[in-house]
Amino acid sequence: MTEAERDAYHAEKMKKKKVARDRILATKTEEKGLLIVHTGKGKGKSTAAFGMVFRALGNGMRVGVVQFVKGVWNTGERDALDKFPGQVTINAMGEGFTWDVADRQRDLAAAAKAWEQARALIADPSYDMVLLDELNICLRYDYLPIAEVVEALKNKPADKHVIVTGRNAKDELIEIADLVTEMTEIKHHFRAGVKAQKGIEF
Amino acid sequence: MTEAERDAYHAEKMKKKKVARDRILATKTEEKGLLIVHTGKGKGKSTAAFGMVFRALGNGMRVGVVQFVKGVWNTGERDALDKFPGQVTINAMGEGFTWDVADRQRDLAAAAKAWEQARALIADPSYDMVLLDELNICLRYDYLPIAEVVEALKNKPADKHVIVTGRNAKDELIEIADLVTEMTEIKHHFRAGVKAQKGIEF
Repeated sequence: MTEAERDAYHAEKMKKKKVARDRILATKTEEKGLLIVHTGKGKGKSTAAFGMVFRALGNGMRVGVVQFVKGVWNTGERDALDKFPGQVTINAMGEGFTWDVADRQRDLAAAAKAWEQARALIADPSYDMVLLDELNICLRYDYLPIAEVVEALKNKPADKHVIVTGRNAKDELIEIADLVTEMTEIKHHFRAGVKAQKGIEF
Repeated sequence: MTEAERDAYHAEKMKKKKVARDRILATKTEEKGLLIVHTGKGKGKSTAAFGMVFRALGNGMRVGVVQFVKGVWNTGERDALDKFPGQVTINAMGEGFTWDVADRQRDLAAAAKAWEQARALIADPSYDMVLLDELNICLRYDYLPIAEVVEALKNKPADKHVIVTGRNAKDELIEIADLVTEMTEIKHHFRAGVKAQKGIEF
């Protein structure tokens, strides 16, 4: 690359950054932290949330994640998130879940601990976005009181984005959400006997 | 961090990596590149694809992206992808689109060029995953021949993952896909007058 090419490259990059910044500033007065719900039986609920997390990280935002149930956040996600040191906090409380009837007390304790962590991240002004991954499943099994969760999310800081994922989102949650997307499975390769794939399922 | 703590940290990290690698190897013989379609009118189609791209990058895979229509791949995504130099190639052919009746010839040329790029990425064995973002919209407006696209995707290398996004996926495409997810909008904040948000829409 010649010096002139480098200059042109830089000018182009700066121009793009300016356009982006101007657009951000133009909408600044209208900004509002959103409560977003991804539900439905299809794939992509947590993956779309994961995409939003990366978009936010790319924008220099700080993101907190609480993983309520051990799930899609595996090696690939973790290794990718390691590229943003200091910008993201992950609480994989779901590791404590057993989903074993005999151990329901332990599951309840794990859910309560995860929720406590979620509340702390939502209250912490240094986080711009909080992802409550698979919170819906805890609510569905009444591992957490829906009234308390709804009350906390309704009273979240105005500028904070909160994303809740998991099938069977409760009506009370849908009611207070700004954006609800349902992922529906039309066709799935597992039915055809194909195994879990690197880069797809983990 | 003391030396002993560092050792323990490293051992833990290596253990995790080994578990991940073992799991990959265990499924190796069953692996098959998937054709995945994200469609529907709801949000999250490209964002979920974006999440899959990051998961793949975190797994050390190489990913090619063709953006058929200028869309959701903005500053946040670009800056986040910059964290994976050498692993990802982005072709934003959509910049050439005008969606102007008077300029249809130019749009057709842009679609043809994007598709040519897509074919090259799919054929290139150094890419593990190829995202054809908003290809569906080009197919819907017959900017590309569906028969030719279906033929090419049916004959893609067996181990390659291809993700196609965009509303109104054609039946011919759904027919040959391994995994199809429909994103349905249940509730949207734009209706309530809230503007596009950093970290959410861009």
